[in-house]
Amino acid sequence: MEKWRSSQRILRNYTKTLISHRFNTNHNNSPNISSSGKQGFYTNSYDLRDYRGRSSTTVNQNCRNLQYRLFGSTTFEVQRNPSFATLNSEDVNRFKEMLGEKNVIEDEDRLATANIDWMRKYKGFSKLLLQPKSTQEVSEILKYCNSRCLAVVPQGGNTGLVGGSVPVFDEVIINIGSMNNIISLDKVSGILVCEAGCILENLDSFLLNEGFIMPLDLGAKGSCQIGGNVSTNAGGLRYVRYGSLHGSILGLEVVQANGTVLDMLGTIRKDSTGYDLKQLFIGSEGSLGIITKVSILTPPRLSSTNLAFLACKDFFSCQKLLSESKRKLGEVLSAFEFLDNQSMDMVLTYLDGVRNPLPPSVHNFYVLIETTGSNETHDKEKLEAFLLHSMESGLISDGVVAQDINQASSFWRIREGITEALMKAGAVYKYDLSLPVEKMYNLVEKMRIRLGQRAKVLGYGHLGDANLHLNISTPEYDDTSPWKYQCRARSWTNESQ
Amino acid sequence: MEKWRSSQRILRNYTKTLISHRFNTNHNNSPNISSSGKQGFYTNSYDLRDYRGRSSTTVNQNCRNLQYRLFGSTTFEVQRNPSFATLNSEDVNRFKEMLGEKNVIEDEDRLATANIDWMRKYKGFSKLLLQPKSTQEVSEILKYCNSRCLAVVPQGGNTGLVGGSVPVFDEVIINIGSMNNIISLDKVSGILVCEAGCILENLDSFLLNEGFIMPLDLGAKGSCQIGGNVSTNAGGLRYVRYGSLHGSILGLEVVQANGTVLDMLGTIRKDSTGYDLKQLFIGSEGSLGIITKVSILTPPRLSSTNLAFLACKDFFSCQKLLSESKRKLGEVLSAFEFLDNQSMDMVLTYLDGVRNPLPPSVHNFYVLIETTGSNETHDKEKLEAFLLHSMESGLISDGVVAQDINQASSFWRIREGITEALMKAGAVYKYDLSLPVEKMYNLVEKMRIRLGQRAKVLGYGHLGDANLHLNISTPEYDDTSPWKYQCRARSWTNESQ
Repeated sequence: MEKWRSSQRILRNYTKTLISHRFNTNHNNSPNISSSGKQGFYTNSYDLRDYRGRSSTTVNQNCRNLQYRLFGSTTFEVQRNPSFATLNSEDVNRFKEMLGEKNVIEDEDRLATANIDWMRKYKGFSKLLLQPKSTQEVSEILKYCNSRCLAVVPQGGNTGLVGGSVPVFDEVIINIGSMNNIISLDKVSGILVCEAGCILENLDSFLLNEGFIMPLDLGAKGSCQIGGNVSTNAGGLRYVRYGSLHGSILGLEVVQANGTVLDMLGTIRKDSTGYDLKQLFIGSEGSLGIITKVSILTPPRLSSTNLAFLACKDFFSCQKLLSESKRKLGEVLSAFEFLDNQSMDMVLTYLDGVRNPLPPSVHNFYVLIETTGSNETHDKEKLEAFLLHSMESGLISDGVVAQDINQASSFWRIREGITEALMKAGAVYKYDLSLPVEKMYNLVEKMRIRLGQRAKVLGYGHLGDANLHLNISTPEYDDTSPWKYQCRARSWTNESQ
Repeated sequence: MEKWRSSQRILRNYTKTLISHRFNTNHNNSPNISSSGKQGFYTNSYDLRDYRGRSSTTVNQNCRNLQYRLFGSTTFEVQRNPSFATLNSEDVNRFKEMLGEKNVIEDEDRLATANIDWMRKYKGFSKLLLQPKSTQEVSEILKYCNSRCLAVVPQGGNTGLVGGSVPVFDEVIINIGSMNNIISLDKVSGILVCEAGCILENLDSFLLNEGFIMPLDLGAKGSCQIGGNVSTNAGGLRYVRYGSLHGSILGLEVVQANGTVLDMLGTIRKDSTGYDLKQLFIGSEGSLGIITKVSILTPPRLSSTNLAFLACKDFFSCQKLLSESKRKLGEVLSAFEFLDNQSMDMVLTYLDGVRNPLPPSVHNFYVLIETTGSNETHDKEKLEAFLLHSMESGLISDGVVAQDINQASSFWRIREGITEALMKAGAVYKYDLSLPVEKMYNLVEKMRIRLGQRAKVLGYGHLGDANLHLNISTPEYDDTSPWKYQCRARSWTNESQ
């Protein structure tokens, strides 16, 4: 799996983003993380491999543009494919005519930010960032780049964890962030239509006043953009309740590499007319086109939310708790997340102001269960009855229910802070896997045995969706690390850790 | 408030297990209807138009195989494309070698059934029906037909209402019904894998014992097959709760026209690896291949179900009731259906033993609201509070809550019997439309004005999904009818009426 993952990363690395999330540029020490940034495509018919040049097993030390990656850099040495053109001043002038001077960015500081990902693992060398304000402008850019054989990388919030939202070489960065208008909301059906650069949290805030919520929620919501969410088929914390974007996305507008605009922006709840082509763009990471508009079904905002932070003695208990919660909490269950003791230690060690809400004890696993419903009394009764039963049956060894929104935030901070804590701890090898629930944690244990004292192995993630985040933490990156090739399971890779 | 009190005596809840409670399949004169069976594809690169011959505006009276359709027959005069081969005895022998004699059907009675749809509107002239028992056999059939240039039509439960599951000319019918094995169920995640010929109700019955339900439910569940459901992107009664098959289907196995088997049979909850090609087969009606296996996420079966049958004075009240129910019933809302007074009259006139559960009065619209949840007391409280509030605010003019499963069945019988009643009433022109909720009923009213006394115009359907079934009833079909060309709105066509 890891091999797959590594190559996937590189594949995507280079390609680009439609839009990204996380990487909140407005805070200092607690950037949001998200699931974006995997998109990318080429404005010409060359495929990715062509543009990169054929992969080689030897390092070409002479190539200025060899990958700059800290991790994995020597395993997939690729060269820039000379068939692609190099940006010149005439190109820049043409872009300025198209977009206006202020939307053609050559400023080094701004480019430095756009050339590197939030994890600071992947770095590109783009000399130009474009900020289109409309679908038409995206189309013109792509048409021009296609005619000139210039490679591009779409970029949104640039919050992805796999380097997909930053250039590999000198691609032109197309940043969608200026396309951030909300177009319409059908207040009966909850169908929202907006531009792809809308930040997820802004959409959620807008919907708050209208009585709806976004069907997805990520740690990176303050930075990630809906276009990137769709392009990377982001999952996140509400997946267990509202399911996949393949079900929620009702329509898309997409610009293909040659500038052709595909209007698939359906705004009806059901549509079985013709082939559902928009589905191909969900999760295709920008490789088929840049998403410019999104139509999405948003669920009603319900009034009551409760959050429990629980401890389990073993992974089997976590599994059993999940099964039980699906039945006993059923319709109100809105999140089911887990982390192991090693993840908790990581957070407590590296994040200021975070504490374990449970009394000191040897807890091997922690589970967060969130309920969302329309009746506070009912929801509390359901949750309390469920927790009581689970304590009596031994599935839970300890637990606490958040008494207010601050306490709930502090519980979520533990789960959502793991990625940040890992980054502070040094190097981190990240794997994002879908596995049958009952086998999910075996992989973590196996890696722990294999690596012994050489690395810290953490397991956490969206247990409700059978989605494991396997993270291996070491003081620094080492391209000769043996564990880079261990993991061969089929992977889910949207990286909303 | 007074009015509410007067009807409160009948507003009593009932709770039942989720055993099928609609439209018993064992009756004689009321076969199930469904949304399956629209598939059809050609084993060669000729498209449908090629096979039928180019459409013409004149009727070719000499062509034996001109469409036999009672409705629409003169609007799409097409001829069999002679490029396609005609079945011969050698072909039949080859099929017998492949499948065994008993699975190669030439019996006239059996063929007569397979050549006509449930509505008896569309009739084909196939001379051969094949019953493969495995993916391999489907592959061999298609490979052979492709090499011989023989046209085929896949057929499941043959319950579709648009003639998609019956031949146009002499296509070989490939019936998937013998492929009806359940392959696996992941009891933690609820992921079911089965063959495409499994009958929807059988799957639901199997899941009953395991604590899950199918995420879709149709009136035709006793006959329709899951492969047809997926091929036609069936919606149905649970759509408002569990959403589109694009979200629920986790994997498919498909056989292409040349016999190539595509294994896209993922069995994990999340998968963002590569392009999600299986999505293209959902709703593509067999035109890209025959679905042979399905992997589907099934929700937990919850213990409490309630059903209310309500009357509203106008369509605006129905809309408002929908909006309110999404908020007030939120997580427990599992169906929101409506029918107009004309639909009620049709059912009362043509179906034996059906009665209006509400006292005689002038009610323009009826709404069925079903809730499904994990706690009977909570669900009853929610529904009662919602109904009380809706009566007080005037959204509901009368209503009754089913007190037991028999009463619930009788309520559903009204909604699900409309199609049957329409068929008994004579000819029916059926339209299945997705429209913004607030505009949905305008079309019905407009058609009513246009047609005056010449026809009865009925409006009913899945209001919760903004899906209108517009049906025009006349004593007999008339190909010169002006309303055949009225309906140009974008249509959702899976026909799960």
